Amino acid sequence: MPSYKLTYFNFTGRAEPIRILLHYGGIPFEDVRVEKADWPAVKPSTPFGQVPVLEVDGKKYTQGTPLARYVANVVGLVGKSNEENLEIEIAINIVSDILKAAYESHFDPDEEKKKQHLKTLHELLAKYFPVLDEAAKKNGGHLGTNKLNWGDIYFVTAYEDIRNILGNKDIVENYSGLQNLKKNVISEKNIKEYIQNRPKIPIFVYDLRSEL
Amino acid sequence: MPSYKLTYFNFTGRAEPIRILLHYGGIPFEDVRVEKADWPAVKPSTPFGQVPVLEVDGKKYTQGTPLARYVANVVGLVGKSNEENLEIEIAINIVSDILKAAYESHFDPDEEKKKQHLKTLHELLAKYFPVLDEAAKKNGGHLGTNKLNWGDIYFVTAYEDIRNILGNKDIVENYSGLQNLKKNVISEKNIKEYIQNRPKIPIFVYDLRSEL
Repeated sequence: MPSYKLTYFNFTGRAEPIRILLHYGGIPFEDVRVEKADWPAVKPSTPFGQVPVLEVDGKKYTQGTPLARYVANVVGLVGKSNEENLEIEIAINIVSDILKAAYESHFDPDEEKKKQHLKTLHELLAKYFPVLDEAAKKNGGHLGTNKLNWGDIYFVTAYEDIRNILGNKDIVENYSGLQNLKKNVISEKNIKEYIQNRPKIPIFVYDLRSEL
Repeated sequence: MPSYKLTYFNFTGRAEPIRILLHYGGIPFEDVRVEKADWPAVKPSTPFGQVPVLEVDGKKYTQGTPLARYVANVVGLVGKSNEENLEIEIAINIVSDILKAAYESHFDPDEEKKKQHLKTLHELLAKYFPVLDEAAKKNGGHLGTNKLNWGDIYFVTAYEDIRNILGNKDIVENYSGLQNLKKNVISEKNIKEYIQNRPKIPIFVYDLRSEL
């Protein structure tokens, strides 16, 4: 088995789907969490001045979603067919757009733009959560296939971050399919154990572990 | 073979990589190009009020990059291994971010935001084109693998759109690796034939066919 080292901040964000996928697969990896104060020293050693970085036998790769897809292939959480993968990827594309609006609403230093991103976030949630909920209902609490896949994990980590960004607003409270999906992910043995034991995120007002 | 029908505008954009991939594979498909005036009538029949839509045996799917990935798998233009696919996907992620800034700089109705997007576009080009150029040089004019793949096609269609958005500025003029990549794509027999014969895009100031 190759050696894996994942570098990110002590935050969920772009790294959490990758961490969860590795834990799901029981794959040992070095989970490096850089403190903000140390980032300027670490930054030049990353491919494009960015994290997450996954090192596979010392070779460095970056970009969150490609890395999650890569690890999903390693641990067998992709679809069984090209069609299943298409369904999963469409869901991930949607969640990724929503998540981007959420991060922008949180991190944009300009108050006016922040508001605009927040408006976009609410529009996207209103447009797409019913669609994702329908997909989850059709597939027994999964996105794209009827068994656990990396789209489910991607959704749940996005859910946690967006819920935090929105001050603990439970964005799936009206969606039974997505609630079921969330349960399917966090009740998986290895994932549950990881979430119970992962380092706390200081800025979190909501933590998935409260649901275990 | 399933029946394929692709619906988009008479524009390159999110559909062009899909069209080129289908032509590369010699796969017959219905290439529906909706006129702007007809869009309000077509829109309600699309999955989320969006195009491109690919119908596979009558089943409708949307979202450009997932569709391109799906067709790339159909026509065999993905990597040979998970690692090769990771390299291709990282390149696509980068190009996709650049393209998004380009489209936003073109379509945003707000003049101030347009300027901001344009600034972002130039920053991304300056940051990432050298990286992509290096990758292309290393792989004989390809991204991620040393043979034609969907990352190459994705790059070239993005190149054409960005060049048009920037008023025919040749954004690869200083990058011999990316020039080579462009040649590799447009000289492929089926792709060349398609580009020679595709409908003209009225708003284009630059057209890939001028390089054939």
